[in-house]
Amino acid sequence: MIDVSSPMAQNIYDRPEFFAAYSQLPRSVRGLAGAPEWPVLQAMLPDLAGRRVVDLGCGFGWFARFARAGGAATVLGIDLSRSMLARAGELTDDPAITYRHMDLERLELPEAAFDLAFSALTLHYIVDLDRLAATVCRALVPGADLVLSIEHPIYMAPSQPDWAEVGGRQVWPLDDYLVEGRRTTDWLAEGVVKHHRTLGTTLNALVAAGFVIRHVEEWRPSEAQLAEHPEWRAELNRPMFLLIACARP
Amino acid sequence: MIDVSSPMAQNIYDRPEFFAAYSQLPRSVRGLAGAPEWPVLQAMLPDLAGRRVVDLGCGFGWFARFARAGGAATVLGIDLSRSMLARAGELTDDPAITYRHMDLERLELPEAAFDLAFSALTLHYIVDLDRLAATVCRALVPGADLVLSIEHPIYMAPSQPDWAEVGGRQVWPLDDYLVEGRRTTDWLAEGVVKHHRTLGTTLNALVAAGFVIRHVEEWRPSEAQLAEHPEWRAELNRPMFLLIACARP
Repeated sequence: MIDVSSPMAQNIYDRPEFFAAYSQLPRSVRGLAGAPEWPVLQAMLPDLAGRRVVDLGCGFGWFARFARAGGAATVLGIDLSRSMLARAGELTDDPAITYRHMDLERLELPEAAFDLAFSALTLHYIVDLDRLAATVCRALVPGADLVLSIEHPIYMAPSQPDWAEVGGRQVWPLDDYLVEGRRTTDWLAEGVVKHHRTLGTTLNALVAAGFVIRHVEEWRPSEAQLAEHPEWRAELNRPMFLLIACARP
Repeated sequence: MIDVSSPMAQNIYDRPEFFAAYSQLPRSVRGLAGAPEWPVLQAMLPDLAGRRVVDLGCGFGWFARFARAGGAATVLGIDLSRSMLARAGELTDDPAITYRHMDLERLELPEAAFDLAFSALTLHYIVDLDRLAATVCRALVPGADLVLSIEHPIYMAPSQPDWAEVGGRQVWPLDDYLVEGRRTTDWLAEGVVKHHRTLGTTLNALVAAGFVIRHVEEWRPSEAQLAEHPEWRAELNRPMFLLIACARP
């Protein structure tokens, strides 16, 4: 098991076996279109035209390139993984996209310098969400949005996060939902460390940082997705992703 | 099984066997102090002094009397149950408390006439939350709060809402969380009808109605409560109550 001394985030993405496996995921190969929650997240975005965007946990830069194609003025992509940033750099020569290696636990950003903050499936790796949310809020101009996805706390909480059968039904065996803190799972590699917070705690952190909550989506597959992937019907039993749009007022 | 044609709320509280059983619950006998979530809900309330309060689902009037003791100017208590309103009326002769028999599905209130709206464990019986939230928001003066509790959607969602054992652990067997709509359970009486919405749907209804989310609590027993009731440790596995404070901006 890998361990790190908080509040430095674990850099699992730079472990070769994790990076190799992650690179094979549909969302790595196909980009945003390979992420089932993307259509819902996309619908929560404002018009991108002219926006100065910061992407917290930019990975391979799929969103950075999407934002630029949608008219964003600039994109600053931040990630802890040098492997991912190297790949992201290879995938674009757009001078309006900047990639930077930074630990979000220690992020510093200029004040009121961005018109949109975005973060996909990153903040559940963060120990100090309060600090990061306050930093991001200050970095936005008034009226600007933060649109984010994380693993849903229902998905992340259980001590044994895997389907079970109870009374002949497939269920998600929830336990420890109200016990916040570290979760260690084996996903693509052993010992991936995440930080479980209840949905309420995440929302309260955003509110305390100065954000106004605009929209909260607990992702469910669409009818079209269920028609294409009937096996996804099990996903109706528990939400895998939590999507939040909030704004600096 | 009892059924009702929506959007009229089911009036389970006026069924004699339900009313008799409900009247024996700690929260009926001891009032607010008999409700384990009360300390958290109370902490989410503003100072009550001088406020004109509306209580949606006032039951026996425990909160109405509490609010008056805390200095509230007036309290309008609304309930669908004539049995509960009759008992509430017997328990006070305070002329500043008014009880009224109304179906919250059809609630009409004067505009900007209240300084606080409160609702305890009622809104999960409501079919049309969008309409009710908009009505309540308009009935508040700017800056006024709505503080509410409902059964938590994790608690309400499962097809078999009872503890199960999986892999030697006590778990809450979650299923159908993302399948919103009617839930029928046997609680104190057979065929109690509730309406399951995800946490996101409830928050989005409040936002769409014009509220700003201030605080979201997924109730967990306090350390003091766990010391007094060690058996409540199981409640850490899943939240039973959802508490929300929001405000009309």
